[in-house]
Amino acid sequence: MAAPDVTTRILRRLLASGVTGRAERLLLRLRPAELAPLLADLTPGEIRSVMELLFRHRLAAATIRELPIELVPRVMDALTDEHLAGVLSRLEIDDLIELVEAVPEDRRDAVRARLTEAKRAELGQAGKYPPDSAGRAMTTHFVALHETTTAQDAIDRLRALGDEPDSVLYLYVTDEKDILRGVVPIRRLVSAPPDRPCGSLMIHDPVSVRAGASQEEAAQLVSRHNLLGIPVTDDESRLLGVITVDDVIEVIHEEATEDIYHLAGLSEEDRVFTPPLRSVRKRLPWMLINLVTAFLAAWVVGLFERSLQQVVALAVFLPVVAGMGGNGATQTLTVITRAIALGEIAFSSGLRAITKEVTVGITIGAVTGLAAAGVAVIWQGSPYLGVVLFLSMIANLAVAGLAGAAVPLLLKALRQDPALGSGVIVTTFTDCCGFFAFLGIATLLLDRLT
Amino acid sequence: MAAPDVTTRILRRLLASGVTGRAERLLLRLRPAELAPLLADLTPGEIRSVMELLFRHRLAAATIRELPIELVPRVMDALTDEHLAGVLSRLEIDDLIELVEAVPEDRRDAVRARLTEAKRAELGQAGKYPPDSAGRAMTTHFVALHETTTAQDAIDRLRALGDEPDSVLYLYVTDEKDILRGVVPIRRLVSAPPDRPCGSLMIHDPVSVRAGASQEEAAQLVSRHNLLGIPVTDDESRLLGVITVDDVIEVIHEEATEDIYHLAGLSEEDRVFTPPLRSVRKRLPWMLINLVTAFLAAWVVGLFERSLQQVVALAVFLPVVAGMGGNGATQTLTVITRAIALGEIAFSSGLRAITKEVTVGITIGAVTGLAAAGVAVIWQGSPYLGVVLFLSMIANLAVAGLAGAAVPLLLKALRQDPALGSGVIVTTFTDCCGFFAFLGIATLLLDRLT
Repeated sequence: MAAPDVTTRILRRLLASGVTGRAERLLLRLRPAELAPLLADLTPGEIRSVMELLFRHRLAAATIRELPIELVPRVMDALTDEHLAGVLSRLEIDDLIELVEAVPEDRRDAVRARLTEAKRAELGQAGKYPPDSAGRAMTTHFVALHETTTAQDAIDRLRALGDEPDSVLYLYVTDEKDILRGVVPIRRLVSAPPDRPCGSLMIHDPVSVRAGASQEEAAQLVSRHNLLGIPVTDDESRLLGVITVDDVIEVIHEEATEDIYHLAGLSEEDRVFTPPLRSVRKRLPWMLINLVTAFLAAWVVGLFERSLQQVVALAVFLPVVAGMGGNGATQTLTVITRAIALGEIAFSSGLRAITKEVTVGITIGAVTGLAAAGVAVIWQGSPYLGVVLFLSMIANLAVAGLAGAAVPLLLKALRQDPALGSGVIVTTFTDCCGFFAFLGIATLLLDRLT
Repeated sequence: MAAPDVTTRILRRLLASGVTGRAERLLLRLRPAELAPLLADLTPGEIRSVMELLFRHRLAAATIRELPIELVPRVMDALTDEHLAGVLSRLEIDDLIELVEAVPEDRRDAVRARLTEAKRAELGQAGKYPPDSAGRAMTTHFVALHETTTAQDAIDRLRALGDEPDSVLYLYVTDEKDILRGVVPIRRLVSAPPDRPCGSLMIHDPVSVRAGASQEEAAQLVSRHNLLGIPVTDDESRLLGVITVDDVIEVIHEEATEDIYHLAGLSEEDRVFTPPLRSVRKRLPWMLINLVTAFLAAWVVGLFERSLQQVVALAVFLPVVAGMGGNGATQTLTVITRAIALGEIAFSSGLRAITKEVTVGITIGAVTGLAAAGVAVIWQGSPYLGVVLFLSMIANLAVAGLAGAAVPLLLKALRQDPALGSGVIVTTFTDCCGFFAFLGIATLLLDRLT
């Protein structure tokens, strides 16, 4: 274990010396988000003491929702079923769902049974929506009013909520069938004359999202329209809940991690401090798939064993072909998957993107091919080897551009995750074509090369 | 150009037929964020007509700030200096800075000169902060009050702002030296008794950020503490401005793009519809660096030309060594750079991360090495080749884990971008060590392999 930081060391010493009062004061001075990472360096016993102190001050829930995912099991282990259920019952439904799923399976039923009845009902309700859907991310705490409610009445409603979070930013106007009619930003409410009806203050036809839509879609709408939250409705436009901007930020972080991770064939749960054996289990399948595809490339090389026998220098250049093709493909793949993730590309403009990437690939192939050929001629003294490298580099990078652009777009069109899987397919395809072009052209010119 | 969507086609037809009124109505029905991408498929003449219509309705500014970066030059070309300056003058300072930088250099001075005087002054002020600093992203429109101001007076101040954006969410409490003392969420203001002083409503010691800090740091604070905005202060804690959550979302998107892009050696401006030649110019330097490093790996292979001559089958397995090492390195690199980006890792826990990644690498190397050895034995009929593959795969993936974790952490410690550059260094290092291990062990066992 590496050296923990100063606050952690002080905290440990206070806990060890039994000066609970001072440990308590230290904990109360920290913000939940600052507290969470400290737990990483504590022993299970210390975590238990800290969580008990936090529990007493009703801060345990705020802390647990800020924990990095790999610390959650450790903290849960330090709490009894009773306490854990108490902590979870204080969470908003979106955090509750996430954390109930993180409870070890052998305790999950026991903890669920100890949740407050209201939370159990909410949980059952939310379970109807698919994972990663807007319905799972929404909170059902919102203020809905009628068009005729006056500004003053609306303010009174807000006041009645009492100590509710400061994060109520919009009031929602619905009709008698609960259909969403508009939103009133709290800012407008404040400046409005007290007797003004909400119907005349509201923004009509607000941006909203269906409960069944993906959280990613909700996040894209919030960020494109610069909103502070988005109402979630059923298919008949009845208001069901609200996704707030802090949850949207979380979704954006998760989506970015997912995109970055999927390009490398990683699972989202495989974080920096996930125990090694768990990481191995998560990464092995992908590495085994890669092994298969690497052998596919090896097989292509094997087709030309006779040529390699005659001109061993060809083997020396295999890393150049693989390296350049791989990098070209990764660049294209990254541009395209990112554009898809940010919603900048539709399938109709996909063809334009593919054409562009192939053009870029050919151009870069020609320039780097020329450079590579120059080095090869000087190093190996064979102008024909230069020609082979030049031509195969163009083919290699054209294929890299084509596959790098077409594969994620196709996966997207087939409603698959464009990032996941693209990597292997594109690299394998590029490697095989690259080796085939390089060794194939070399075989055609074999007389000149020997 | 691919088939534009239906709305674009209708818009084009309306513009062509000169029915400006109907085109206008269509444009007014769209939200700024929906309008922006339509412009991608229009000709310069059509863009000019659209921008003129938008300009008349004061919607041009909202549209231009939602444009994907690669469309900005085209839209700017369609506006006269006068109009462009008019549009830019309506923007908040953070958007203004970004867009002034996007004005073609030969027009920039002319456009700047035509901005309103207030905007020119703001622009000069913001220019004092380094690029990507919090100071550049903040808006200077905020409401600052004294502790003794009553809730009612605060509401009156808000009312006086009139039609200001609905996005004012906090009021800031400062003392006579402009030092930030607290924030009052507007939600609390609404529920407070009218004569309550703001000092008793405010959150003390609010999270804030220095103007010189990076935008990334500001975004991390907002997302960690679930804020809706963050006050920006100078080094003496005097309130200078505010970064709102919609700008934070933009920063998060940009940072994620930057991380994903830098891992692939891409420049942020290289987007899906950047003209091909520009993309080529952006990507070439990286590809040339890669060419040099690929030749480094080729040189390592070249050291063993004699062994390759005797056992050509070794050449066949080079793609397997390179492929597996490359993938292992990418996985580790991705986990570590993402953890750095999300602030989940400190240098002190870096050593723990490195140890873990090496352990994971050795384990995965052993498992996949065993599988690869099995295939090699069956395919090539040589058990010794199997031994060579097994041993070198372990070495290969241990190095991949070591380099993949250590290089970004070192770059971070040296205050460099951990994503940019890591890719090349790690891949080259892994490739060279992998080839050296594979061909080196093979050379030691050469008698048995022939």
